[in-house]
Amino acid sequence: MHQARESDQGKRGQGFVSRSPYGDRYAFDPVSASQPAEIDGFLERNPGREVVVVQGLGFVGSAMTTAIASARTESGEPKYAVIGVDVATPESYWKVGRINAGLLPVVSLDEDMDRVFRENFRRGHILATTDPHAYAVADVIVVDINLDAQKKGFGRARERSVDLTAFKAAMRTMADRMKPSCLVVVESTVPPGTCEKIVLPIMREAFKKRGLPEAPIRLAHSYERVMPGRNYLKSITQFYRVYSGVNEEAKRQVRSFLESFIDTKNFPLSEVSTTNGSEIGKVLENSFRAANIALIQEWTEFAEHAGVNLFEVIRAIRMRETHKNIMLPGFGVGGYCLTKDPLLADWASVELFGGGRLDMSLQAVDINDLMPLHSFRLLERALGSLAGKTVLLMGVSYLNNVADTRNSPSEMFYRRCAESGASVVVHDPLVCHWPEVGIPIATGFAELRGCGADAVVMAVRHDEYMGLKPEAFSEFLKDGGWVLDVNDVVDDKKADGLRRRGFHVVGVGKGHWNICERA
Amino acid sequence: MHQARESDQGKRGQGFVSRSPYGDRYAFDPVSASQPAEIDGFLERNPGREVVVVQGLGFVGSAMTTAIASARTESGEPKYAVIGVDVATPESYWKVGRINAGLLPVVSLDEDMDRVFRENFRRGHILATTDPHAYAVADVIVVDINLDAQKKGFGRARERSVDLTAFKAAMRTMADRMKPSCLVVVESTVPPGTCEKIVLPIMREAFKKRGLPEAPIRLAHSYERVMPGRNYLKSITQFYRVYSGVNEEAKRQVRSFLESFIDTKNFPLSEVSTTNGSEIGKVLENSFRAANIALIQEWTEFAEHAGVNLFEVIRAIRMRETHKNIMLPGFGVGGYCLTKDPLLADWASVELFGGGRLDMSLQAVDINDLMPLHSFRLLERALGSLAGKTVLLMGVSYLNNVADTRNSPSEMFYRRCAESGASVVVHDPLVCHWPEVGIPIATGFAELRGCGADAVVMAVRHDEYMGLKPEAFSEFLKDGGWVLDVNDVVDDKKADGLRRRGFHVVGVGKGHWNICERA
Repeated sequence: MHQARESDQGKRGQGFVSRSPYGDRYAFDPVSASQPAEIDGFLERNPGREVVVVQGLGFVGSAMTTAIASARTESGEPKYAVIGVDVATPESYWKVGRINAGLLPVVSLDEDMDRVFRENFRRGHILATTDPHAYAVADVIVVDINLDAQKKGFGRARERSVDLTAFKAAMRTMADRMKPSCLVVVESTVPPGTCEKIVLPIMREAFKKRGLPEAPIRLAHSYERVMPGRNYLKSITQFYRVYSGVNEEAKRQVRSFLESFIDTKNFPLSEVSTTNGSEIGKVLENSFRAANIALIQEWTEFAEHAGVNLFEVIRAIRMRETHKNIMLPGFGVGGYCLTKDPLLADWASVELFGGGRLDMSLQAVDINDLMPLHSFRLLERALGSLAGKTVLLMGVSYLNNVADTRNSPSEMFYRRCAESGASVVVHDPLVCHWPEVGIPIATGFAELRGCGADAVVMAVRHDEYMGLKPEAFSEFLKDGGWVLDVNDVVDDKKADGLRRRGFHVVGVGKGHWNICERA
Repeated sequence: MHQARESDQGKRGQGFVSRSPYGDRYAFDPVSASQPAEIDGFLERNPGREVVVVQGLGFVGSAMTTAIASARTESGEPKYAVIGVDVATPESYWKVGRINAGLLPVVSLDEDMDRVFRENFRRGHILATTDPHAYAVADVIVVDINLDAQKKGFGRARERSVDLTAFKAAMRTMADRMKPSCLVVVESTVPPGTCEKIVLPIMREAFKKRGLPEAPIRLAHSYERVMPGRNYLKSITQFYRVYSGVNEEAKRQVRSFLESFIDTKNFPLSEVSTTNGSEIGKVLENSFRAANIALIQEWTEFAEHAGVNLFEVIRAIRMRETHKNIMLPGFGVGGYCLTKDPLLADWASVELFGGGRLDMSLQAVDINDLMPLHSFRLLERALGSLAGKTVLLMGVSYLNNVADTRNSPSEMFYRRCAESGASVVVHDPLVCHWPEVGIPIATGFAELRGCGADAVVMAVRHDEYMGLKPEAFSEFLKDGGWVLDVNDVVDDKKADGLRRRGFHVVGVGKGHWNICERA
């Protein structure tokens, strides 16, 4: 998702070049970009089609653009003309540029996503623009801009803040231009209460100013559960959805809209009574996961003390239906949702509803944010002082087989190692540049040859790492070096193979190995 | 389970009468009870059968006695002769008395359990005794005595303590008499580490004293997941199991023993590497549940502030496989496991392994222990001062459709009401006497006629309460009185019916009702 700016028009009037993470560049020309003719021409090429505008072209918005464009009428015709909108800034414009060049803003392993996007783009059913005029022609607007919570630091989730300025500005830009009959579907993760207490008043005020005080409002909330990776598109079109609306007509319309591009026969929709409920659903889902990940951390440390393989125990526990969702030990929690959604909820409880703090959910965020320190302590126990040692960190993405480094636990781990005087070599098969740290990253194993690391830290369950054979480790690990498996990348058999080659192996949640190493 | 005493022989020599919770009485005669002839005669009636002793005849032990007695050889013959052992005290002897009278110690709704017990008892395959001589004739001993953690009070889980004196004494009683080749299966929930660090040394020491220092030890751990109710027996015979042993032979033997009475084709066993792991599994399972119940409490309060029906939202969230185990709002947590197992784990981490505290798990116990106070606050908000008011509390069991009041959340709620000057009328269709509070309880609705309560608190999802029609409420609730649904006993339709009759309805986690009531 993009970060909404104070005004979507902020940089209008200045040209610039916007560069994507993949290196391609797009020149923004303020004159040609604001030609209403571009949108009008697009509409002429899509006669009779409903117009859907997707506001925000990040991970969710670009996937939604594709999913919505895939909708067909009963006669097999494309149902919608889809316009993706993002802002005219050097940080964001490349998403618009890429779409109009026939490329998705998010590169994924999902071939379906690419195929469906290309087909619909080629046929002229998808356009991207920075021009807010798009809102004026929309029958449906899907809000996919992001809304961040700010932390003062790791372990300080209670001191969170939420700045709604940019989000409100984006809603005003929309409400000032949209047709009153247009359905607005807020899909962003928002503090519960946002639709009723923030978006609705903005729309009412805008309609009043526009001389439409009686216009019925079609405002709905339906949260996405998009998961980048091999099933990126299906995580929208073949998955469950929760929705609500601020009135019965809004509920009816959003239901019918969702049914047009989601396989609701196999994945029935869940309607809840209020948008507050739908908004709570999203942040509660992620707080549930965050809390369950956090819970396992103290048991991970317990198991390590007790010489227990906690993975084996948890897999046994998961046989029970009632316990299938118990989490495994790990390195930490990254990404964009679990690290902030409990904060949005806590903020809403206090600031929008005058309620209490969500202590346990906040605490979970703190535990998860600090989790990489446990792996760091294991490394220190293995190597002693890190000064002058070489540590090879394998994996900087927060998720396996995805090139996404947002809030990756590898970052805290990397910084601690560097602060302690270690020389840290970083590798990830999918990421060539680490934006949060600002360093280039080795993507091939050949680049690691002769690295002579004192320890290698297996941090991400990328296929490339899971498949790495014991004999390959001598390429980059020195004789008698340490393998630190912080994310269940190495199984017992491989650990034996590594030990036979003279390496030491320890692992997070793998107390049975640590016993071997102590003995 | 019974509470093991300092010595199983403690009251030997004195006669007494032991009374069951159902009112039947059993006279203990020290002379006849210690006749080895009783056990010898039982063995003669079961020639060639392996002898299984179940130590402790509570909820788990009496069910296990039945489950083990149901095992058949390939030719359809009973495989085991089963001897249940409990202690000769007025508090516990009735369990022995009931079994020998052909009655199960635990009355349940499970007809299967009763039938299987009766069949095997009539055929002479089940005996109960207080005589520790039973251990000497056993081929397998299943340890089902309980092991409590003590709290200094609600909300003070960190100040827990565990007293192993009685448990150790029971293990010594066993080890001093058992055949060295006997398989010992600890099924009790114990602090992780108990088999290796407590039971094993006791057995070694006893065998050494008995001149058997080289005797191989057959010690295993396999935890039960017994659930009283309609599927009481099946919760043993048709359910998953985790097990381990202190050596490979112990693992092999316990596996084969479990396979003899559990449907392991449909419910495969899970072996873990060490008894520490199996012991951690049990307390982690219950800590997972306790933590997830606790997590929902802060969301329950949030939802009530936001006017949201949290049940509806959580049912929508549960559509996701990854979120099926998210818990619903409720009144509190009772019973014997979730209220203490995290404490056993925390104690073991610190005292047996020199590790850290299990903060989140302990905190969950505190939140859950104090949960009924939230319902109490809702009641206060509804009625104002409780002084002189009549409150009708419906349900004192901690579980629906089960007559079990151990640690029931109703207890704290009842005491708060009483302390606040309310006159509390208590009802439960399944419980005629509340042992923890020491008061008789109305079991029929007719007894409530003319009660004229200011508020009725629906606390337990007993079938009788779920089926109660709105028109029935005027029998015991005064005009304009309050219905406080603290455990999702009343659905929206019934709430409407109650409102039409002039009653007020509020509910835990049912923010949408509370909004109606505020309006």
